Amino acid sequence: MYGERIRKVLENMKKEGLDQMLVTDPPSIFYLTGKWILPGERLLALYLRADGAHKLFVNRLFTVDGDIGAEKMWFSDTDPGCRFIARYTDPQKPLGIDKKMAAKFLLELMELGAARGYRNGSECVDKARRVKEEGEREKMVLASRLNDAAMARFRHLIREGVTERQIAEEMLAIYKELGTEGPSFSLSVSFGANAAVGHHRPDDTKLKPGDCVLFDVGCKKDGYCSDMTRTFFYRSASEKGREVYEVVKEANLAAQAAMKPGMRFCEIDQVARGIITKAGYGPYFTHRLGHCIGIEVHDAGDVSSTNQDVVEEGMIFSCEPGIYLPGELGVRIEDLMLITADGAISLNQDPKGLEVIS
Amino acid sequence: MYGERIRKVLENMKKEGLDQMLVTDPPSIFYLTGKWILPGERLLALYLRADGAHKLFVNRLFTVDGDIGAEKMWFSDTDPGCRFIARYTDPQKPLGIDKKMAAKFLLELMELGAARGYRNGSECVDKARRVKEEGEREKMVLASRLNDAAMARFRHLIREGVTERQIAEEMLAIYKELGTEGPSFSLSVSFGANAAVGHHRPDDTKLKPGDCVLFDVGCKKDGYCSDMTRTFFYRSASEKGREVYEVVKEANLAAQAAMKPGMRFCEIDQVARGIITKAGYGPYFTHRLGHCIGIEVHDAGDVSSTNQDVVEEGMIFSCEPGIYLPGELGVRIEDLMLITADGAISLNQDPKGLEVIS
Repeated sequence: MYGERIRKVLENMKKEGLDQMLVTDPPSIFYLTGKWILPGERLLALYLRADGAHKLFVNRLFTVDGDIGAEKMWFSDTDPGCRFIARYTDPQKPLGIDKKMAAKFLLELMELGAARGYRNGSECVDKARRVKEEGEREKMVLASRLNDAAMARFRHLIREGVTERQIAEEMLAIYKELGTEGPSFSLSVSFGANAAVGHHRPDDTKLKPGDCVLFDVGCKKDGYCSDMTRTFFYRSASEKGREVYEVVKEANLAAQAAMKPGMRFCEIDQVARGIITKAGYGPYFTHRLGHCIGIEVHDAGDVSSTNQDVVEEGMIFSCEPGIYLPGELGVRIEDLMLITADGAISLNQDPKGLEVIS
Repeated sequence: MYGERIRKVLENMKKEGLDQMLVTDPPSIFYLTGKWILPGERLLALYLRADGAHKLFVNRLFTVDGDIGAEKMWFSDTDPGCRFIARYTDPQKPLGIDKKMAAKFLLELMELGAARGYRNGSECVDKARRVKEEGEREKMVLASRLNDAAMARFRHLIREGVTERQIAEEMLAIYKELGTEGPSFSLSVSFGANAAVGHHRPDDTKLKPGDCVLFDVGCKKDGYCSDMTRTFFYRSASEKGREVYEVVKEANLAAQAAMKPGMRFCEIDQVARGIITKAGYGPYFTHRLGHCIGIEVHDAGDVSSTNQDVVEEGMIFSCEPGIYLPGELGVRIEDLMLITADGAISLNQDPKGLEVIS
């Protein structure tokens, strides 16, 4: 499996005219070797070469057992790691660089003359990661099934006087009870006007009748991520709240119905954005429609108005239109979508009808 | 306070011949503005200029309230963030780059010709962060006091048949009860031979009589980190275990007694390493003696055989000698040390004598 993945990356490198590349992002190294190594500030690099002489440069502090399809090049805290790498790179050829490589390493490699030119080569890996293999799809389905089970319980945490922070803690306990590996990102629960604030963190805000309650939540299972958003109302929903909710729901459903292989990501974004704009809320849909997801909750690639890439069977990404009225409320409805041969299926089955919880 | 911190950074930039710099690491941006922004894969950059026209480039998705000593430059997911930055940088002058800036942004800025040369400029920020202000010292003292209180309870978690994973979970609950903001890193508890494995993660290993039990743990309080290691023995300690323990303890104490302003980090490392080497365990002390700590559990700067930097009053770093005998046991004893006018004090008061727990 890992050999096949590396083969795909080498194929992508060839198309990009790259004979060599450094992969440094831990999730990508996990994808290509099956090893999760979190180096913190230390150097970690998988050097891929067209001729197959791959090497993993890794600090002795970490454990890397077994055959990983690359020679292990050990070094210690006091060794000049980048110099070791520069001994093996071909200085006459361009070098693909991981999009997330820390600048300190890239600048040092440049100073050492490790290559003839440096290019962001991450698409070679990300393109492979974006199309999920059968085994990966099963893990994604399972993670989202657990997320559905969690959401079924989360709505019951909504009650008089509860704070966002209390609910956030209770959600963590539920994910644990369900046997997940924990949340896939910092769980979000926002009441009322807080739901209109981008990336609001759960705080001591108390729930009030009439508030919207936005849950943006996900868990990990077998190393793969889920991610879903539902928005409820407590005790009552204002007319404006109901209107906004129905527009967001329509955008969510229409985009999902339109999805199929061969479309561009920007076209999918446009389906949802068109509906929200037509309803007069265009300026209040302040983000992209979605993002790819897999080993990371934000895999590379997004469903945005500027992404011209073409959607393929086996891709999984979120569909999460939202409308945010500052000082008032926010509504977002998010599912994960798997692209099939002729359309798309939602990995989330949690109902999406407007719910007023009493 | 933040103005004074930025002033220090500008002073350091001047010494390095830098008139402009991009700070992108969230903890450094927090240090300089008081705002914690976690941008994930999105662009976030604090552009510092000698002439004071600082700018924070930030996605509209995030909330940045109030005056932050820099003009806020908002952009959205579909805007070309690096192009915005390149409009303001001086292409005729070198640009300081954050050591952790993601390569995708650095490579794009280079392509856009944002500056005349790019240099790792992080030392300008890290040098300021390394010397703690009075208020920061108080927070570090408090975080370590809580860590002492936690360790006093952790030793009581050692019992027949318990697994590493169980103890790790119980430790999290204790940190919560103590009112901390949670662990400052992924807590480590290792039994027996696991303690000899670098960065071993708690697993289902069961405690056995005669095992060493290594706890490497820390918590956050008011945004600052603690970090301490203690090693115990369960039921009995072998002769080898006792010998190793006493050597590590001697190295820990001798290094602490030697610390004072004006010494080089490598000299401190040498004090501990010399003792361990003399006892015949040199090859089994496989890492640096310590690391700086503050807002991050690993602040930039380490106590290693290659770091020639000079220690100053107000610096805080770990002193953590260890000996690891593969397949057998590992012993590490770690305290956080604050450099004073004429020496150093330990922020940890938890006892360090050999303890056999029954």
